[in-house]
Formats: sequence, C-alpha cells, structure tokens
Amino acid sequence: MFPLNQWYVAGFSWELEEKPVARTLLNRHVVLFRLKDGSAAALEDRCCHRGLPLSFGTLESRGIRCGYHGLLFNGEGRCIEIPGQERIPEKACVRSFPVEEQDQIVWIWMGSEEGAAPDSSPPAYPWHNDARYEFRGDVYHYEAPYYLIHDNLMDLSHLGYVHLATIGGNPTTHMTAEMRIEQTGDIVKVRRWMKDSIPPKTYTDAWPFAGKVDRWQEIEFDVTHLRIWTGAAEAGAESLENPERGGFHMRGLHGITPETDTTTHYFWTIASNHAGPEHRNIDTVFAQTAQTFGEDKVIVEAQHRNLVRFPEHAGVDIHVDGGANRARRVVQRLSAVSAARTPQAATSRNIDVAQNAAPSPASSPTAVQS
Amino acid sequence: MFPLNQWYVAGFSWELEEKPVARTLLNRHVVLFRLKDGSAAALEDRCCHRGLPLSFGTLESRGIRCGYHGLLFNGEGRCIEIPGQERIPEKACVRSFPVEEQDQIVWIWMGSEEGAAPDSSPPAYPWHNDARYEFRGDVYHYEAPYYLIHDNLMDLSHLGYVHLATIGGNPTTHMTAEMRIEQTGDIVKVRRWMKDSIPPKTYTDAWPFAGKVDRWQEIEFDVTHLRIWTGAAEAGAESLENPERGGFHMRGLHGITPETDTTTHYFWTIASNHAGPEHRNIDTVFAQTAQTFGEDKVIVEAQHRNLVRFPEHAGVDIHVDGGANRARRVVQRLSAVSAARTPQAATSRNIDVAQNAAPSPASSPTAVQS
Amino acid sequence: MFPLNQWYVAGFSWELEEKPVARTLLNRHVVLFRLKDGSAAALEDRCCHRGLPLSFGTLESRGIRCGYHGLLFNGEGRCIEIPGQERIPEKACVRSFPVEEQDQIVWIWMGSEEGAAPDSSPPAYPWHNDARYEFRGDVYHYEAPYYLIHDNLMDLSHLGYVHLATIGGNPTTHMTAEMRIEQTGDIVKVRRWMKDSIPPKTYTDAWPFAGKVDRWQEIEFDVTHLRIWTGAAEAGAESLENPERGGFHMRGLHGITPETDTTTHYFWTIASNHAGPEHRNIDTVFAQTAQTFGEDKVIVEAQHRNLVRFPEHAGVDIHVDGGANRARRVVQRLSAVSAARTPQAATSRNIDVAQNAAPSPASSPTAVQS
Repeated sequence: MFPLNQWYVAGFSWELEEKPVARTLLNRHVVLFRLKDGSAAALEDRCCHRGLPLSFGTLESRGIRCGYHGLLFNGEGRCIEIPGQERIPEKACVRSFPVEEQDQIVWIWMGSEEGAAPDSSPPAYPWHNDARYEFRGDVYHYEAPYYLIHDNLMDLSHLGYVHLATIGGNPTTHMTAEMRIEQTGDIVKVRRWMKDSIPPKTYTDAWPFAGKVDRWQEIEFDVTHLRIWTGAAEAGAESLENPERGGFHMRGLHGITPETDTTTHYFWTIASNHAGPEHRNIDTVFAQTAQTFGEDKVIVEAQHRNLVRFPEHAGVDIHVDGGANRARRVVQRLSAVSAARTPQAATSRNIDVAQNAAPSPASSPTAVQS
Repeated sequence: MFPLNQWYVAGFSWELEEKPVARTLLNRHVVLFRLKDGSAAALEDRCCHRGLPLSFGTLESRGIRCGYHGLLFNGEGRCIEIPGQERIPEKACVRSFPVEEQDQIVWIWMGSEEGAAPDSSPPAYPWHNDARYEFRGDVYHYEAPYYLIHDNLMDLSHLGYVHLATIGGNPTTHMTAEMRIEQTGDIVKVRRWMKDSIPPKTYTDAWPFAGKVDRWQEIEFDVTHLRIWTGAAEAGAESLENPERGGFHMRGLHGITPETDTTTHYFWTIASNHAGPEHRNIDTVFAQTAQTFGEDKVIVEAQHRNLVRFPEHAGVDIHVDGGANRARRVVQRLSAVSAARTPQAATSRNIDVAQNAAPSPASSPTAVQS
Repeated sequence: MFPLNQWYVAGFSWELEEKPVARTLLNRHVVLFRLKDGSAAALEDRCCHRGLPLSFGTLESRGIRCGYHGLLFNGEGRCIEIPGQERIPEKACVRSFPVEEQDQIVWIWMGSEEGAAPDSSPPAYPWHNDARYEFRGDVYHYEAPYYLIHDNLMDLSHLGYVHLATIGGNPTTHMTAEMRIEQTGDIVKVRRWMKDSIPPKTYTDAWPFAGKVDRWQEIEFDVTHLRIWTGAAEAGAESLENPERGGFHMRGLHGITPETDTTTHYFWTIASNHAGPEHRNIDTVFAQTAQTFGEDKVIVEAQHRNLVRFPEHAGVDIHVDGGANRARRVVQRLSAVSAARTPQAATSRNIDVAQNAAPSPASSPTAVQS
C-alpha cells in the first residue's frame, strides 16, 4: 500500500525523447511519451485490442501507435484510428494519468480512483533553474521498498560507515553531529551540523578548502520526494543559521517512487555551485554522488533481503533514528488514508495490503534516545 | 488445459541423432530417441529407480540406459536390464507415448489417459517431399501460451507493423486485404488477397518480380499445427482461385505444441520454389523467415507478459480478428472435451485447469466487423 | 525438517581469514568469523538495529562492526558499542551459535531451541592430522536436498556410469561388488570389495600399480557427515580385513550440511598417501576428486529437479540400495525426534515440515534384493 493522491516523480524531461518510456509506478504499468505539441502524456501501457504494451509502439504527431495492428491512441488514451476500420468502438480506450512537466521533472498524479483529478499543483524544485548551480541526475532501480530508502536518507549518520571513499569517513563526527528534528504537517525536517570537522574527499575535490569546515546536512522529507541540502564553509566563516550562507553547496533531489511493493525507482539529481570558473566541479560532484548512491543501493538492497529472511525482526532504535521514524509514521498515516479512499474492488483484489504496508518503527518517538 | 487425443509435433527427424532429446510437451516430461531399428520412441523422462532423467543416459541398440545406475529401458518403457540383479520387478517401467515419424516430422499422440491408443494416423505434410520445393526449419521456444501464437498466425494483418524489414510494410495494404474465413469442423481457413500490391523485401529478394504483384495468404488452422501458403505472382498473370497457380510460393508448417500452460514449442519449416537454377532462394527465404518469426516471438512474449500484468484485460475486437476468434473457439471446445475424458485423479491434481484454459475471444463471431 | 541437536560442518578453518563469511545453515542465516583471540564465532547474520547482514560489516579485535551505523557485536552476539550513544539497550543482541574448531573443521551446534547447549563434543577427524596423508578440500553448493547426497555416497555402484573418467568405469565390477551393510545405532556402514579388478584412472595416475588390484570402499554414515575410505592394493598383497593394510588410500570427509530444505552445502576434503617422495599425488588426487564430485553434483541436481517435476515418483529399489535406505531411515527418525523437541512457535511457523521431510525409501530393508 502506498500514499496515493500525491504527485510522484515519473521521470525526467530528458528521458522523453524519440521513444516511449515504459515504467511501472505504484504497481501501475505506464507508458510515458511526449506529444508533438511538447506536452507529456502517461497511459496505461496496454493496447485495448490484443494487449501488447503500447511502449512497443511508435510515436506520431497525434499520439502513440500500437506495434501489433496499428491502433492509434491520443494523449487522453482514446483510440483515434483503427487501420482498415471506420467505426471506433466507444470502449476502445485505455486509462490515462495526469502528468505535469516542471523544472525538468515529469510529475504524475497517482489518484486513489481512476479519473481522480489532482487537488494541487506539482511541487516546485527551483534548484534546477538557479543560475548559481549546475546539475545532473540519473534513475536508479532498487530491489527494496521505498520506505527503506527514506530511512537511509533521513539518517545520514551512516555516511561514516558506508561512504568512506566520497562524502563520509570520520564516523565519530557523523555519529555525534548536532541534530534537530522538526515536523510541520507531513513535512519532516532533519538538520545536522558538524562544526569544525574534516572535509571529506568529495568536498576537497570540489572546492578549495584550506582546512577544517563547518558542515551541514538539511533534509526535508516529503512523502514522495526529499530535498537534501548539504555543504560546508571554512570553519567559522559563515553562520549555519543563515539560509543565504556561502560556501560549497550540494542540492539533492531524491524522487522516491515505488515501482511495486518491494521495488523502487530512485530519481535523483545533484546540483552544485563552484568557487569560480577555474573550479567547475559538476563532473566531479556527479561522479562521486553516483558512486555514493550506488553504495547506498548495495546496503539498502542487502537490508531488504535480510528483512525478508528475518520476518520476525523487530529492530532496536538508536539515537539517530528520530527523523526516519517520523517519516515512517507519515507514510503509514497517508497510506491508511489512501486505503480508506480506494474503491472496494481495487483493495479486495490486493489481499496483501496489510502485509506490504510500511512497518511501524521499532519504538515511539519519545523512546528515541538523544 | 490443452486439447488432448491429438497428434502434436514433438520434433523433427534430424533432431534424433546421437543423443536423446529431453522435451516437455503438454506438461509431460518426455525423452525422445531413436532405436537401432530406426524407429523413434518417447518415454517419460524419469528412471523408475532413483528418478534421474533418462535423457541423461546413453543410447544403446536395445534402448536407453540410465546414467546413474545403468538400468536399461526399451522403446516401450520396460526395464530390460538391472546390472548386477537377475530379477526385474514388474513395476520397473515408465510411461511410453505413441510416436510416428513421417515427412521428417516426429508426431506424438497426447492421449487423455495413459495407454490411450491413437484413433487416427498423423497428418500428412506433403510439402516436405515435393520436388518443386526446398525447405528448412527450426524450433523456437516461446515464453507465451500456444493460443497467442495461433492468434498471431491467424491474423496476418500484423505484417504491416511487425515485419517491416522482411515480408511486411505497407500497413494499409495489409489492413485492407480482401479476407474470407471458412470453417469445416475444427479446421478454420483464412484467405487473404492483396491484388496489385507492392511486393515486400523477402519476395523481391527471392523472385525476379518486375513490378506489382497479386499476393495471397492462405492459412489453414488445425488445433495442433497450421499450414500457411503465402506467395505472389506478377499482377494479373495468374488466377488466385487456381490452386495450381504459378509464381513465388512459400509453404510454412507451424507446429504449435504447448510445453506448459504458459510456454510453447514452435516447430516451423519454410519451403519455397524458385524461378530457375540461377534463382535458388532457400537460403534467403529461410534467413528472412527466421528473422520474421523472431519478430513475432518478441511481440507475442511481450503481449503475454502484459496480459499477466493486466489480468482484467477484456480486449476490444477489430475487423481482422474473425479467423483468430474461430480458432480460439475450437481450442476451447476441444479442451473441454479433453477435460471431460481425463480421469478424475489427473484433473483433481491440476487445480489450475480453469484458469489456464485459453480465454474466450472478446466477442462472438457475428459481432466481428468486416 | 532436519535432524537437530547435532554438530554440523559450518566451514573450514582456512575460510575464516580477513572477512566474515555469510552462510545459511539449516535455514538459519549465520555469519562466521574469527575473533582476535583466534576463536571462531557464529552469530545470526542480522544487525539488531536496521537489519543489515552483519556479514557486510568489518572485523575488529573485539568483534564484528555493522557496516550501516557501526554497532559493534562480540562473539556472544551482545552489542558492546553504539557509536554516539552511551546506554546500550538490553535487547541489543543477536542469537549466537556454539562453534568448535577442530582438525581444521569449524563445527556448529544446531540445537532445536535457541540457547541449547551441546550435549557432546564435535566429532574427531584424525586424518587431517595424520602424517601419512596430505589433504585438500573445497565447498560445493548443491541445488538439491541433503538426503539425495547421502543416497549418492551410500551407494557407490554409480561409479561405473557416472565417473568413467576418474574413479569409475567397468560398470559390471561396480554393480557386482561384494557388499556388506552394518548398522550400530545411527551409524550405518557399507563395505564394498572389488577384488582382482582393473584399477581406474585416478588410481593408476596416483600410484604405481603393476596390474590388477584388490579394491575397497568403506563408507561410514553419520547423519551430519560421512567418512569414506577407498583404496586399493596389488591383487593378493594385503588382507582387506586388516584395518592397517597398505596400498593406495583415499580418505574422504563429506560434511553434508543442509542450507535450506532443498539446497545443501557439501564440505569435502580428500586425503591421500603416496608411494614415496617421487610419487607425491595430492595435486592429482585433489583435481580428479574435484572433477568426480562435480559429476555427482550434475547428476544429483538433475535428479532433484526431476523428482520435483514428478511428485508422484515412488521409485523402485534395486539390490544396491540397502545402505542408502538405512541412512534415510536414520534421517527420518532423527528429524522426527527434533520436530518433537522444537518449540511449538517455531514449528507452527513452518507449515512445510511434513512435505519437506526426507521421503521414505521405496521399500523396507527386507525387500531389498542382494
């Protein structure tokens, strides 16, 4: 079960070029493509005739043509041509999904009912359009449920153990960072400061730091995606309270879109500033971030396989789990709301609803040590 | 569930050389081999001692010897030697299946009961012995149920979209072909004419056509195999009603033998004539047919995966579906007859009978547009 | 279901070097490692915090540190450090398993209840410490249940058909060997003599035999491992009754440790003597034994797949099955005893107990021909 009636990341603008993109999102099998007018469309990936995925078809100015017998569908999922046949039956159509393209992100509205209209605009992500930053991104496929990736991102204390070669190392620094957790509605923020600390490899490769740094990690959790602002300034040079502070910035977008109950699309971009034209760093930052996120994938997938092997695992919370546990509760609450709004027929078909929901954190927030 | 009490293609004569062939046919695990007297045999692929597949054994003049402890079985499945032991228990035997070899095709009788004797001779396929033709063939393995391959072959309108590089292209020609459907008992025939049409690549590569052609596709469906006669003559040169007409001929045998409920062996040969010794074309025809059938396999397997992903798919029929729908009804009727004749013990063991039967076509024949 | 409250082989001493070893044993997921004091330890392979396998961690002098957030566990499974946190919760621990290292074998006690203490010492295997012998070994992974490997080893008549290139061939000799079966408690011994027989390739490669040999195979079955002493002396030169006899000796250890109900770890070593310094043979003996056991793996895995495909297979016993059938009955008896001693909660969780138990041999011992 997933939180529904939300805007999820379905892809990046640069993915919708000549060919349709087949992607399963929240157990729905979708074909994404761009129409000649430039707008993006998302349809159920199934021709209503013999069932071939429409993603095996070809793009035309009016829509997508099936690769088996040539039925043509427009962006709303209506069949607008059956070659060799005049009449087009009313039922010759497939489900369409609301999509909006913004900031080079293709957002899809996953409603609890077919035909449900979005009740909001998709989230803005201004850092893709900020002249101070360059950015790059990629899509990783996880053999693990989405909420384990939330856990990973909400608790960056793991950097000391997992990312020794890039943004981590110095585990004591990471495990004893000054941490503040805030929650406003369904948004959970975790702020971590590591003042007067040794900058890790990625930082010294990307910025001409002279010595120790004041380093920050600001994580903002939204149930479909996270914004993570990390960075550092020369020790003592900036106020970490100042949102306009200088120094080296890494702005990460993390679109965590469930593929199925146990697999996930991880859409990510990393944006960085540089210390002058001779210090352009986006190639370095992108390469080391890709390596870093690859390390997370190894860990989280191993964790998932192990939780499946140990179904009775309850888990013992430690002092760094507060942010992750709050995020988990948001997921559970919104999933429960979605389940209540989903038509009976749909839920009764999926008898695994209860088992596949994100499990509760081990303890209540008050029990978390700090 | 499959139509039983039928002759199915189990293999080609040239496959039974030095080694036994292991093949699952209609959920039965069979070892095929040739005895020293030249006759073919088919046994359950299991030694009655410790259960090793007999296909791991070796061929001897009297039969097949198990590769674990050396039990020797004759072509009727009787154990005729237990090394080091005098007495051979009565129950030391395995099931055998009636096989007949004819026209370089190994036919197997799949009866609804063990020991059921064939009530007919295997079908003749004279084109393998016709001096006007040369032929070649191969076996493809499909990750798709047999009836989806029937659909593919009974409706050749897909050539315009699927086989652009060989026998297709010109989709309008294919989607508006003059079509006639006939049914006699369980035999369904579809005849398609495309007069004064542009010959496709395979035709111009194989035959010295000067310009446009009168082209035909004659499909004859039998529940275990299809005969498809396609070809073309110079436009206006021949009567398409004349079964003795000249021009370029391609004679296809399509043995569609279920492996399991969801996988299929596709035994095929293609035979062609040529326009004179300097125009020998079998290499070209075979290569392009192999490519063509490979394209079908990609489409049909994708279709199958998608029908599994969309179990609620009902399907909308279009004007070209008449032949395929009639074939589907033959499959269903004969499957139901087989189920009724199959002993209770066998059916109750397989509780998936209902689900795995070929689903009904979307609409009745009268509803098909033309 | 497995025989519990037994010492099983978990690994070899030389496997526990710099890195922890992850291994599933009797459906328990275990990490094996060596502490700085030289002792071996075995823990449940799961951090009690977020569930990452501890085998993804690193070894330190005091224990194993988790690779996600750095929790440190000692050899008893107690968490002894949570970085950045003073208090360590009582429940921060994972299950540990008794291990004993002896004769370069790591033995693990698999009890029917958590915390069950061993009621015996692990078995001695003196041939790893015998100056007359050199030995080598390896671990093979079988996609087959453990009891089929027992069958294979308890009935060496298969050598004539399976191992033609190394220790077999001459099937008649193997199928008519003089055989004696003895049972003392749960130990089953099979003794096979092939007097005045042709030595196989491995024997003539390893020892300067002049002509025919008196050959023996002495198999001693223990429910967790087998000792197999095979060898040969010049025909007539030694008494095969004499346990101190000379000639060419191969001493095999076969630790048959279930991984899951249907997969198995096969820990094996082979020790051999030689006919003088110029006849050192361990390289030859090891290489040919590795090939031989690889041939067994192919056969037994094919047998297992086939028994799954033919669930109704009853099997017909032949004259050589007596030893294997006795071993199977020991397995069944000890498995039943274990099931009775296992706490209710554990057995009710595993509803496959009955199906996955080793099936009975086809017939009773008295029915076996000889």
